[in-house]
Amino acid sequence: MELENCINFLLSTAQHNVFQYLNSQLAEYGVTPAQYGVMNCLWKYRDLTPKQIGELLHLEASSVSGILERMQNNGLLERNVDPENRRTIRVSPTQKTLDLQPAIEKIILHMNQLVMEPFTQQEQEQIRRSLTVIGNRELV
Amino acid sequence: MELENCINFLLSTAQHNVFQYLNSQLAEYGVTPAQYGVMNCLWKYRDLTPKQIGELLHLEASSVSGILERMQNNGLLERNVDPENRRTIRVSPTQKTLDLQPAIEKIILHMNQLVMEPFTQQEQEQIRRSLTVIGNRELV
Repeated sequence: MELENCINFLLSTAQHNVFQYLNSQLAEYGVTPAQYGVMNCLWKYRDLTPKQIGELLHLEASSVSGILERMQNNGLLERNVDPENRRTIRVSPTQKTLDLQPAIEKIILHMNQLVMEPFTQQEQEQIRRSLTVIGNRELV
Repeated sequence: MELENCINFLLSTAQHNVFQYLNSQLAEYGVTPAQYGVMNCLWKYRDLTPKQIGELLHLEASSVSGILERMQNNGLLERNVDPENRRTIRVSPTQKTLDLQPAIEKIILHMNQLVMEPFTQQEQEQIRRSLTVIGNRELV
């Protein structure tokens, strides 16, 4: 099989290209693409457990834990023990994270327009739908 | 913007899912998905410079160098100084890598069938074409 037809190679190459671009755009704000994912969840829901964040981002608990720790060290979020259930941690955004929302959403919007520019509206929808199917597929 | 519409999130989630599956399938042979990429190049061309491998795989020189070093340590390839140009390194497959070709290509073929199963032939071609466009796009 030619590498150019291998779905893992195609996904890795496309993801790498887009990730590198977004990473360079977000660097100005000291934020990584994965950290943007967490910020997006916190802008929307304000208050989440690490487990809920992992489910929203399709990430393993160990990955989430590392991302949250670095974000806390950068003043992007707080992790507090839930007063109603002391075995649960609750994650909430800092004022810094709330203030960054307009600037970062502008970068995300521009990235999406730039990456999707070569495609018609219908093709764009099909690409998003196909990637969602592949991302949610149980592969065993 | 909803995370579910963000092309970086969609690509990362789909790539992560397929990569994890392929990684687990290749682990039996002590090979990673990136190493399979290099093996694929060596099965096809037999003899390449690290720069050529980087171009074929869309990888930075520093990434290629790390992958080649681990593969050499695992007996998957040889790196030799080009006798005609002593500043050039040439990479070639070991017998072990040549022997692994049928088993690994079977895994790759099965992975592609499994991931692409939900789509029609026409949709599959469009997904491959779209990912190629996104991977080759100069984003600045």
